[in-house]
Amino acid sequence: MQENTETERRDALFAPERVAVVGATDREGSVGRAVLSNLDGFDGDVAAVNPGRDSVLGYPCHPDLASVPGRVDLAVVVVPPDAVLDVVREAGERGVPAVAVITAGFGEAGAEGAARERDLVAAAEAYGIDLVGPNSLGVMSTRSGLNATFGPAMATPGSVAFMSQSGAFITAVLDWANDEGFGFSDVVSLGNKAAMDETDFVRRWDRDPDTNVVLAYLESVVDGRAFIEAVRESDTPVVAVKSGRTEAGAQAASSHTGAIAGSEAAYEAGFEQAGVLRAGSVQELFDVAQALDGLPLPEDSTVGVVTNAGGPGVMTTDAVGDSDLSMASFADATRDRLAERLPANANVHNPVDVIGDADVERFATALDAVLDDDGVGAAVVVSAPTAVLDYGDLADAVVEARREHDKPVVAAFMGGERTAAPADRLAEAGIPNYFDPARAVDGLDALARYARLDAREFDAPREFDADRERAREILEQVRERETNALGVEAMDLLDAYGIPTPAGGIADSPGEAEALAAELGEDVVMKLVSPDILHKSDIGGVRVGVAPDDVRDTYEDLVSRAYRYQPDATVLGVQVQERIDTDDGVETIAGMNRDPQFGPLVVFGLGGIFVEVLEDTTARVAPLSNDEATEMLSEIRAAPLLRGVRGRPAVDREALAECLERLSALVSDFPAILELDINPLVARPADAGGPLALDLRLTIDPEKL
Amino acid sequence: MQENTETERRDALFAPERVAVVGATDREGSVGRAVLSNLDGFDGDVAAVNPGRDSVLGYPCHPDLASVPGRVDLAVVVVPPDAVLDVVREAGERGVPAVAVITAGFGEAGAEGAARERDLVAAAEAYGIDLVGPNSLGVMSTRSGLNATFGPAMATPGSVAFMSQSGAFITAVLDWANDEGFGFSDVVSLGNKAAMDETDFVRRWDRDPDTNVVLAYLESVVDGRAFIEAVRESDTPVVAVKSGRTEAGAQAASSHTGAIAGSEAAYEAGFEQAGVLRAGSVQELFDVAQALDGLPLPEDSTVGVVTNAGGPGVMTTDAVGDSDLSMASFADATRDRLAERLPANANVHNPVDVIGDADVERFATALDAVLDDDGVGAAVVVSAPTAVLDYGDLADAVVEARREHDKPVVAAFMGGERTAAPADRLAEAGIPNYFDPARAVDGLDALARYARLDAREFDAPREFDADRERAREILEQVRERETNALGVEAMDLLDAYGIPTPAGGIADSPGEAEALAAELGEDVVMKLVSPDILHKSDIGGVRVGVAPDDVRDTYEDLVSRAYRYQPDATVLGVQVQERIDTDDGVETIAGMNRDPQFGPLVVFGLGGIFVEVLEDTTARVAPLSNDEATEMLSEIRAAPLLRGVRGRPAVDREALAECLERLSALVSDFPAILELDINPLVARPADAGGPLALDLRLTIDPEKL
Repeated sequence: MQENTETERRDALFAPERVAVVGATDREGSVGRAVLSNLDGFDGDVAAVNPGRDSVLGYPCHPDLASVPGRVDLAVVVVPPDAVLDVVREAGERGVPAVAVITAGFGEAGAEGAARERDLVAAAEAYGIDLVGPNSLGVMSTRSGLNATFGPAMATPGSVAFMSQSGAFITAVLDWANDEGFGFSDVVSLGNKAAMDETDFVRRWDRDPDTNVVLAYLESVVDGRAFIEAVRESDTPVVAVKSGRTEAGAQAASSHTGAIAGSEAAYEAGFEQAGVLRAGSVQELFDVAQALDGLPLPEDSTVGVVTNAGGPGVMTTDAVGDSDLSMASFADATRDRLAERLPANANVHNPVDVIGDADVERFATALDAVLDDDGVGAAVVVSAPTAVLDYGDLADAVVEARREHDKPVVAAFMGGERTAAPADRLAEAGIPNYFDPARAVDGLDALARYARLDAREFDAPREFDADRERAREILEQVRERETNALGVEAMDLLDAYGIPTPAGGIADSPGEAEALAAELGEDVVMKLVSPDILHKSDIGGVRVGVAPDDVRDTYEDLVSRAYRYQPDATVLGVQVQERIDTDDGVETIAGMNRDPQFGPLVVFGLGGIFVEVLEDTTARVAPLSNDEATEMLSEIRAAPLLRGVRGRPAVDREALAECLERLSALVSDFPAILELDINPLVARPADAGGPLALDLRLTIDPEKL
Repeated sequence: MQENTETERRDALFAPERVAVVGATDREGSVGRAVLSNLDGFDGDVAAVNPGRDSVLGYPCHPDLASVPGRVDLAVVVVPPDAVLDVVREAGERGVPAVAVITAGFGEAGAEGAARERDLVAAAEAYGIDLVGPNSLGVMSTRSGLNATFGPAMATPGSVAFMSQSGAFITAVLDWANDEGFGFSDVVSLGNKAAMDETDFVRRWDRDPDTNVVLAYLESVVDGRAFIEAVRESDTPVVAVKSGRTEAGAQAASSHTGAIAGSEAAYEAGFEQAGVLRAGSVQELFDVAQALDGLPLPEDSTVGVVTNAGGPGVMTTDAVGDSDLSMASFADATRDRLAERLPANANVHNPVDVIGDADVERFATALDAVLDDDGVGAAVVVSAPTAVLDYGDLADAVVEARREHDKPVVAAFMGGERTAAPADRLAEAGIPNYFDPARAVDGLDALARYARLDAREFDAPREFDADRERAREILEQVRERETNALGVEAMDLLDAYGIPTPAGGIADSPGEAEALAAELGEDVVMKLVSPDILHKSDIGGVRVGVAPDDVRDTYEDLVSRAYRYQPDATVLGVQVQERIDTDDGVETIAGMNRDPQFGPLVVFGLGGIFVEVLEDTTARVAPLSNDEATEMLSEIRAAPLLRGVRGRPAVDREALAECLERLSALVSDFPAILELDINPLVARPADAGGPLALDLRLTIDPEKL
């Protein structure tokens, strides 16, 4: 048994010297024949493997992998499902570094298939094989002419790498892309992602000098945290359609692949944190890819528009208004230059209207002036067809301007067939062209978004002094319960992680309650503590402003209310808390739920009734850096409330962000915490004491403690 | 002078028998030559008018309109701006019913041009001429081969009518549409819309049996209320791009056309009330037009998806999830039928996956079963290319299924060139086809939206007993003011229109205050009344819960605070109001602002700090029907708060809607009211007394009283 080195693996999959097709056959309509035929254009050698033949389609045929003379870099496996495991083992024994399993009937096919898939993964790991699939269409690399798939078409060479969890989608895309002249470096059909997944390919293509953009069609991510790290570390932009975004779509995806994809909130947060550019549709996926493939990143998100038609100029401006871009304000010098060179009825403000009788030279002059302006990050050229304008010449002028200025330029040459050849000229220079100016602007918007994502610095999460032992003891209490839930009686957990809570404690007798109230020295808040009563307020289980003299009676009353409500209730006592003035505060909630792919997801939002009604929340995959926690505070729609509006003071946002970071540390330290809610977490101004957690609920998996 | 009848006019513009080109010339590159040349393909007669020639481009030429023998239905005017008015008068004198003025240099060209335009409109009105333009590209009608424009191309025949406020956009669209085979019935370049505007054409095309859909590119609407009425009355769907939607876009539109377009909120409300399908981009405009042109309206908004590929099936389901449509749940019988006819590994739930090895017959069988299901309103056929599937045959099968079931069907045959011919077959049967399933779904979504809009019944606004005389007297008070604003002292205005206000009144002495408080018989609320002090709370000008004994002192204190704050303030007194328990209430605001195009716009939203921070408001053009007012309550994001959540009682929504209707009646009766805000309008449960207006501000134009 021979383990493969990283270097060998890198080349083996997409740049093999020798490929073996295991299960090769010349039977009409068979997958084995299709794969072998597709390898016709491959620069390297091909060997067929099939115990029943001497040659297949002109290739020498060997009875098994072991008998193939010389090296084998990539084995493509199309034998029946039961035979796949042996082939992979054989490949391992003779040191084949990469295997693509096309055969279906594994994880997607019930319990038996799933067992087969586990064995397959174990074998691949034992031998250090890079295994693609099973249930894959195969792999392609245009650099070596490698088409190790059973699909109907080979990709055109280009610099976009493409991975897809749907083989059919690859087939459809290639059919379209080849006609459009849209090229690819490598294409991989991920299949069941039993061994190699999206994260592996993000890493691989990051190292590939021939790949400028990574495109992904994904229905799930195998390891959310690893994916985030890989995309962050990659210098190559990743654009993805995550299918199953909606509830209906997620259900369809799960019935299609058998995989559970986790929550959309987690994907949204994880992709954002990773820096994935997420496309909502197929069209957007390729529009964004085209912009990223051919254009430099803008230095800022201001746009200059040059057009020969007022109406389309307004449409373009609307599209800019819809995006995260903004219309550039030209420098005086630019306006003067435009005024000097354009006719009197032209508009020298942005959008620049060179007027319907403009020839290419006038267009070019205006575009040059606009791109020369330091306040312009990118330009859109929008043109209606006129008698005096040749789109071919205009394309040349736009390409020239794009070359002279290191700024992105996109085009909307509006029209029919007459735009086809000019669009090809533009495309050769990396400039996308659309009829609809909105699509051109969307391309620029994606570039600017990527520029911002690319410029981010990732700070490590801060380390906090936390009393982990005390926290563990509190969590251990759950073992004495009939439920897996803890409530306000676990408030010390927050204290152990430095999240501020009110002074006070839990009393289990009227006397103890009185003593606690005496310590606090003023009117207090008293709350029933019972794991069986979730909505304490509904049964009058919360009293605010209890005077010292009334504490004993209130204790008795609260406890008797609990038993009246539920005679067999477990009553843990009564919480006696200092009374908090929340008038200047904003009720927020901070919580966590655990996603199967991304792990702990920290959620923050406005508290009380608003969370329910307005769903004004935001989420991040833990652990959180300080930057990420701070971003969360700005992302909710009600963010201005935290910054202070209409004479209300600003809350202590720094301390509030720190609460989120500390919460993130807590849930990262204890995987046993499945769900947690601090509700309310009252956000107060710094001089009113800053944030304060008033109530807590959490669910624990005692097995994981 | 001869006035034209409606019948003559209807045909004159788009179906003239004889067209005269005034300003005809054969000078190369001139607009006059271009128009005359474009009339080559016209079925009717053409006469040239130019005092300097006997014939132009082979047409007989006459010195002036009066000298043209026989009838003239349409005069196309290309003479210099100064000469246009005389031509229009001449046309009127000889009874030409329709005139298209191509000449520019009117409203878009400064004060002189605007004056010229006013004269033009006056002449057209005096003679009863249908005048298009000025500053128009011209008009086209494919039914008579009429191309009375100076554009480079003639439209292909079809059943979509198209009007555009941008001539360049028409040129661009025709160039594209002719290549796509997208056809038009009539096309009109609206130009400056000095006389005929969008409303006229909506009415005209409603009567036109050859037009199925009206498309509009608009930068403004001349008369919002008339437009709403016309679209409501029309049986022909209207799809519009309203350009200048965004702040930047509106600015660009205004500098381009010189017109002020009013607020986006008014357009949004007005278009919605009218039933216009609004498109956000050029692509969407034509996608929606195609769906409406070729497909029947769905009976409900449930969608069945049939595909041969899991991934694209999930994408399609996501697109349905993003839209207002929903995935159909099949009847048991449908699932049984599918299970019987499809292979075991097919998915018989929605989206139906007929599996990659499906031939056309299997696809057709599944589609038929799905369309037979009564719970399916429409279907999407999504296909990836495979070796066993011919897209041409699949297109035939889809066309067949569409014909057999009176339900809309759209297609996403994914692929490149191989989809072109099948897409043409589909298009002939009115079925749109896109690579991106999301676009196909968007087409269906637009159909379903239109079906809902089309099914609406428009109730007349309710008539309320209102004391108009008393209202007028209150408004007249403004004449005694230095400002045009009224405040809480005008609360009786609301009372006059039956909008509930608290008991109490305004006192102008401590004694009167005490008397008012005595009448109320309990603790009261006292508010300073001064037009000079907008934010009363900020200077302590509002007191809640004043005991009867403290009323005198409080009066003195409030007044002295006003003078301390602003020594020359006008103090009108102090409002003494009953104290309202608002605990179960929700603070809302109801207001009005007046839009230049749409008139009074009633705005409703959550009150207090939330309006400012969350911008949770909705608007409608007044007058409001009961249905419209009720809809407004459901449209704000916080609508669940009004319906009651988490144990909070529901507010009296019926009475709240009535407040909006009464407000609508008030602002419709008094155009002098420019702006009005009831803030807060406390929405309370019926048993707590229903809605109550607590404060009021309004701005009045005394000239209009």
